Amino acid sequence: MKKRSLPLSQVYKLLEPGPVLLVTTSSGGRPNVMAMSWHAMMEFEPPLVGCVLSGRNYSFEALEATGECVLNVPTEELALKVAGCGNTSGRRKDKFAAFGLTPAPASLVAPPRIAECYANLECRVVDRRLVEDYNFFVLEVVKAWIDPSVKEPRTLHHRGRGAFMVAGKTLRLPSKAK
Amino acid sequence: MKKRSLPLSQVYKLLEPGPVLLVTTSSGGRPNVMAMSWHAMMEFEPPLVGCVLSGRNYSFEALEATGECVLNVPTEELALKVAGCGNTSGRRKDKFAAFGLTPAPASLVAPPRIAECYANLECRVVDRRLVEDYNFFVLEVVKAWIDPSVKEPRTLHHRGRGAFMVAGKTLRLPSKAK
Repeated sequence: MKKRSLPLSQVYKLLEPGPVLLVTTSSGGRPNVMAMSWHAMMEFEPPLVGCVLSGRNYSFEALEATGECVLNVPTEELALKVAGCGNTSGRRKDKFAAFGLTPAPASLVAPPRIAECYANLECRVVDRRLVEDYNFFVLEVVKAWIDPSVKEPRTLHHRGRGAFMVAGKTLRLPSKAK
Repeated sequence: MKKRSLPLSQVYKLLEPGPVLLVTTSSGGRPNVMAMSWHAMMEFEPPLVGCVLSGRNYSFEALEATGECVLNVPTEELALKVAGCGNTSGRRKDKFAAFGLTPAPASLVAPPRIAECYANLECRVVDRRLVEDYNFFVLEVVKAWIDPSVKEPRTLHHRGRGAFMVAGKTLRLPSKAK
């Protein structure tokens, strides 16, 4: 999978449909990955993304400490790995090895990108005002990568308790908006 | 479409997959509706939802002034109405009449529910700390309604510029999480 840089103005198109993400962090040189669905776009450019990482997650500690993560967008063929990441903690397990995910170097942040995901968004925390009350971080996407061969990604959308909706057909309707 | 009350603990299942929502507000007794995709779950129960309403939208003023809205979840058959709502302003137009949407009374807030949407979430603003910088409101869902006959809703997910992904098949995978 050969990826290219994606203009930051296009990032919202990846996240606005609401896919499950794999969030990578790195703490003390040790990378980790978790599944995450509680995210929202907050600005087009520079792209801002708000997200909640449960305080019970090992990844929360790493994001809180380092202020860096990568949001990786998985598609249908990774569904079992995504569910596996969601069901285990990285506190005592190397989830990259356990689920056969390949870490690839990011360009501007320490956490790795996941090679198997068709898109990767390198992020830095820019606002922590709602972390204490809601574990809600505001991230700025500083660099985006995409596999340009994926036109209509079959992303995963969590309906709760392990039920994942897979992206279906696309309707194209008249639009005045972005 | 006969709706019943949905336990608040189940609300996350409706929003976590990331569907486009129709947000209804009411200002001076006049209801309005807009399409919105920038939302994220922030807590299971009571359910909290963070969302961005552009400051250019007439609905922003109403939500800011009244602190109340209803999040309505449309499905595929409403796609043209959703795109229409997204392409027009309620400042000078009655969008309910223009797009053939039926307002139905909510039980705890002033803005109407949309009868044609299979689920309706009555909300109050509970945190405005990020409104000034990002137009980001934290809402609490105080009452939820659902049409129990809709098991796998064909929700709409905006990919940008009028391209809407329609919810496809469901995978059921092992889960330890909610």
